[in-house]
Amino acid sequence: MLKEAIYHRPKNNFAYAYDTQTLHIRLRTKKDDVENVHLIHGDPYDWTKDGWQTAKSEMRLQASDELFDYWLAEIQPPYRRLRYGFELISKEETLIYTEKGFYKEAPFDDVAYYFCFPFLNPADVFTPPAWVKDTVWYQIFPERFANGDPSINPAGALPWGSTEPKQENFFGGDFQGVINHLDYLENLGINGIYFTPIFKAASNHKYDTIDYMEIDPQFGDKAKFKELVMKCHERGIRVMLDAVFNHSGYYFPQFQDVLENGEHSRYRDWFHIRELPVRTDPRPTFDSFGFTPHMPKLNTENPEVKNHLLEVAKYWVEEFDIDGWRLDVANEVDHQFWREFRREVKLVKPDAYILGEIWHDSMPWLQGDQFDAVMNYPFTLAALDYLAKNRVNAKSFANQAGSVLASYPENVNEVAFNLLGSHDTPRVLTQCNGNIDRAKLLYILQFTFPGTPCIYYGDEIGMTGGEDPGCRKCMVWDENAQNLELKAFIKKLIDLRTNEPAFGSQASYRILSADEHTNHLVFMKQSNEERIYFVINPSADSIKTSLEGKSGLDLWTKKEIASDQNTLEIDTDAYGFSMIKVKG
Amino acid sequence: MLKEAIYHRPKNNFAYAYDTQTLHIRLRTKKDDVENVHLIHGDPYDWTKDGWQTAKSEMRLQASDELFDYWLAEIQPPYRRLRYGFELISKEETLIYTEKGFYKEAPFDDVAYYFCFPFLNPADVFTPPAWVKDTVWYQIFPERFANGDPSINPAGALPWGSTEPKQENFFGGDFQGVINHLDYLENLGINGIYFTPIFKAASNHKYDTIDYMEIDPQFGDKAKFKELVMKCHERGIRVMLDAVFNHSGYYFPQFQDVLENGEHSRYRDWFHIRELPVRTDPRPTFDSFGFTPHMPKLNTENPEVKNHLLEVAKYWVEEFDIDGWRLDVANEVDHQFWREFRREVKLVKPDAYILGEIWHDSMPWLQGDQFDAVMNYPFTLAALDYLAKNRVNAKSFANQAGSVLASYPENVNEVAFNLLGSHDTPRVLTQCNGNIDRAKLLYILQFTFPGTPCIYYGDEIGMTGGEDPGCRKCMVWDENAQNLELKAFIKKLIDLRTNEPAFGSQASYRILSADEHTNHLVFMKQSNEERIYFVINPSADSIKTSLEGKSGLDLWTKKEIASDQNTLEIDTDAYGFSMIKVKG
Repeated sequence: MLKEAIYHRPKNNFAYAYDTQTLHIRLRTKKDDVENVHLIHGDPYDWTKDGWQTAKSEMRLQASDELFDYWLAEIQPPYRRLRYGFELISKEETLIYTEKGFYKEAPFDDVAYYFCFPFLNPADVFTPPAWVKDTVWYQIFPERFANGDPSINPAGALPWGSTEPKQENFFGGDFQGVINHLDYLENLGINGIYFTPIFKAASNHKYDTIDYMEIDPQFGDKAKFKELVMKCHERGIRVMLDAVFNHSGYYFPQFQDVLENGEHSRYRDWFHIRELPVRTDPRPTFDSFGFTPHMPKLNTENPEVKNHLLEVAKYWVEEFDIDGWRLDVANEVDHQFWREFRREVKLVKPDAYILGEIWHDSMPWLQGDQFDAVMNYPFTLAALDYLAKNRVNAKSFANQAGSVLASYPENVNEVAFNLLGSHDTPRVLTQCNGNIDRAKLLYILQFTFPGTPCIYYGDEIGMTGGEDPGCRKCMVWDENAQNLELKAFIKKLIDLRTNEPAFGSQASYRILSADEHTNHLVFMKQSNEERIYFVINPSADSIKTSLEGKSGLDLWTKKEIASDQNTLEIDTDAYGFSMIKVKG
Repeated sequence: MLKEAIYHRPKNNFAYAYDTQTLHIRLRTKKDDVENVHLIHGDPYDWTKDGWQTAKSEMRLQASDELFDYWLAEIQPPYRRLRYGFELISKEETLIYTEKGFYKEAPFDDVAYYFCFPFLNPADVFTPPAWVKDTVWYQIFPERFANGDPSINPAGALPWGSTEPKQENFFGGDFQGVINHLDYLENLGINGIYFTPIFKAASNHKYDTIDYMEIDPQFGDKAKFKELVMKCHERGIRVMLDAVFNHSGYYFPQFQDVLENGEHSRYRDWFHIRELPVRTDPRPTFDSFGFTPHMPKLNTENPEVKNHLLEVAKYWVEEFDIDGWRLDVANEVDHQFWREFRREVKLVKPDAYILGEIWHDSMPWLQGDQFDAVMNYPFTLAALDYLAKNRVNAKSFANQAGSVLASYPENVNEVAFNLLGSHDTPRVLTQCNGNIDRAKLLYILQFTFPGTPCIYYGDEIGMTGGEDPGCRKCMVWDENAQNLELKAFIKKLIDLRTNEPAFGSQASYRILSADEHTNHLVFMKQSNEERIYFVINPSADSIKTSLEGKSGLDLWTKKEIASDQNTLEIDTDAYGFSMIKVKG
């Protein structure tokens, strides 16, 4: 057994409260090295003169990646306290793994050897809003979704879709445009909208805020926004706004005051000024997002700044009843700020959703005290590499997916924000080099992966576009120019996710095989008595797969499949997929 | 190279802010598997069309344990942001390790491969009070230190030291007793006192609080306590109290109210009542510390309880100017409570010290938002196993010490609360089976280990005693019954720690060799131009050691040692030690 591969450390993703009664304990071992793992556990104080009263629970293999297997036990300790160790069994040996290291036999003379989950306190349980699991998100870049009120067009606005999007041009998208198309969105089946920023700002993307308390006039006014939120809510659609709190815009009055008054400005400490007077060339003499002078970093440790931003966070929830905040560049703001942000926002609306923009490993933000979720770009990149770009094979995707899932607690994975693209990346279909079949496979992967899917506006009708600003074209409303087949495909996926228990958020997820030669992927979702097998085949050859079951239902074609044996033989077309529901 | 052994995950002990300018990045590799490690790093946004601007920094081998080596790089990123990966070089190969896995060559086309420390925000830096590093603690169990005012003896108090300590007996120790012996303490050289609980309680140990706002009358009154703190401060001695917030006592009036009024009690939700009416047999029908009915667990999530305890925490700091809180059973209270506790206490006294009682791995409490330190029992157990009990050899101790040090950030290690025993364990000399030589070696280990040492009252004069209550004997004040040689030894250690820069808190610590056959340990502390070599020899044979240096000073005997070569040959007696200071 390879001791060096064995890893466990309490809290984070290895030992956590799944809910107020249940602990999840996980262990990492070298891939294919260990046959069985048992959790040895007991109450820390359950001692008699004969030693410690322990129990043994089987752990199940939950995920794997390139190098490791990950095992899980679910335990409900009667007194909410747990000491535990691991019994690892391979063909050659049995080892006991504890906080103090490895033993041939489990030491029972002292609990101090063992790992400790001291107490399951409800306040520390990671608890995202219950509604998030069942949300299908739709991301809207307001300047480009629909122009419903030309009277408020910004100066120089171009005719809708008349030219390519550029860093500087405007087309006049607004709230009335969104209201006008709520039927479209409801019909598509989405039930959550994530709006990129809507507050007063200079640019078309509005990530350079001038006033956090005002709607940008090109989108409408507060009354119009209130109407929009209300109309969304009437249709069961939640609304999430973008909080750009890492930095303000260059034209933020407080920053302008620093430019004008230098060291005498009372806002000097609202930012991180390195040198006065402020210069922007060759690089800003103040901290900013990246090195752009347009986005001076806010000093979120300054109590004035903190109070202002927390007021903003509460204001839009209290006054406009929004349901969540997406936090821009969330990783560069201090954890302490986000803890206070969470407390304040949840006081106003306990089931508000807090979603951080973080592209890398995000465990430090997902411990229950800060965010409910992060944008799951590691999933995005793995999925695109496999299906859009054919850069890695099915096995490599399965390893990366296993790694992503093993990196976080289960309750974190259940509300991950799974996207295939955004205003910050090339569009899905462009990533697929225009290949609709590949895009469809990607959507199946996205809609079945643990977490909640988000569609970037227009992707559902096959819009294309490269890196920003290419991915920010005007939404195409002419049905003749929409890919209606793709739209119907996505609508059907949303419908299946919503109505098939084993497809949606209640189901477990398990990759069954990932073939590096044929390049196809088989995974299963399971809920109660039902399971659905998915076959994804991004290859030029059709694939035969044998699935366990006496009879099944092809969820896509609604055809019944039967077998005399306990094995269903499934054919999956080249560049195609299968989704077979099996009962019992 | 063994990939499975290689571990890094940002934050915690692997990537953290050492101060507001400096990041520490650590990597774990299989022991003796890798020859060199370089950190490849750059600003996340420093891109040109040629790729990412990176630098390479050498990492140094910082610690080792049984299975692993740990490497460290210290980096001051100019814009406080860092993306990084590792270049690992062994005899056979060179590998690049990133967040996305291993590569043969460093990928420079995208920063997304790399680990990320997004921003060094001062608010998130782990910042213990500056004075703690240089504190030598002395733990006082007030009922047993000295009886200075017999007029307030509790009923049935026994003559001082007239009999063995029992769970139930009293000897009348009090604050006046401590005041009377401040000369003794100052002369010993300690500069911090940790008092076990002093609030009104039923037992002799006072861990079963009746009133958190009152001094137990057997110790004195508030005026007397204020006098005690003031007199300590006049001598440069800090005062830390014990906050028993996990549970109250059985006679806590709010708990008594629940006993009396059951479901109608307005304090019902102050506790975790499982069943009413409350029973205590066979086990309490309420959550308690362990299974004892004497200590009902407080519901620290109840805002009333939280407010009460936070008021208590602030009151004793504000009104009595205490310098720190030691938190009893800290691991079983919710993290959320401790975050608020820290905020409130530090608002009142920014340099108050917050020390948690946790016996196991404590990383989740030491991330800057909760505690400044924990009681370092993993060090205690390793040290006792090696030197007191001869249960493990020098090599095993070195591995365990390496493991403890590698488990936490450097700035956490610097203020660890290192103890050899407490009111909860048998006394050091008893652990040593009465062997003073072994005890002396233990003190050297303790006083040189990163962190701050704490002496349990009476250990310095060779008091003995087994498990609680045996370890809680009355302090021996008759000099004829004190081991004055041991006391002088400890006083000398305190003096060296205080006056030799390379001995104290400014010095780095490194184990140089640990021999499993001769069982001797060699380690070095270094500060600026000076280094001190320590040889610990718990064997029946004298040991010869060769140290690097042209000349040295035996710090204990003050003898100069010289050599013609660049090697000093040192003889260390059986059951003895050497400490040799070398310059340059």
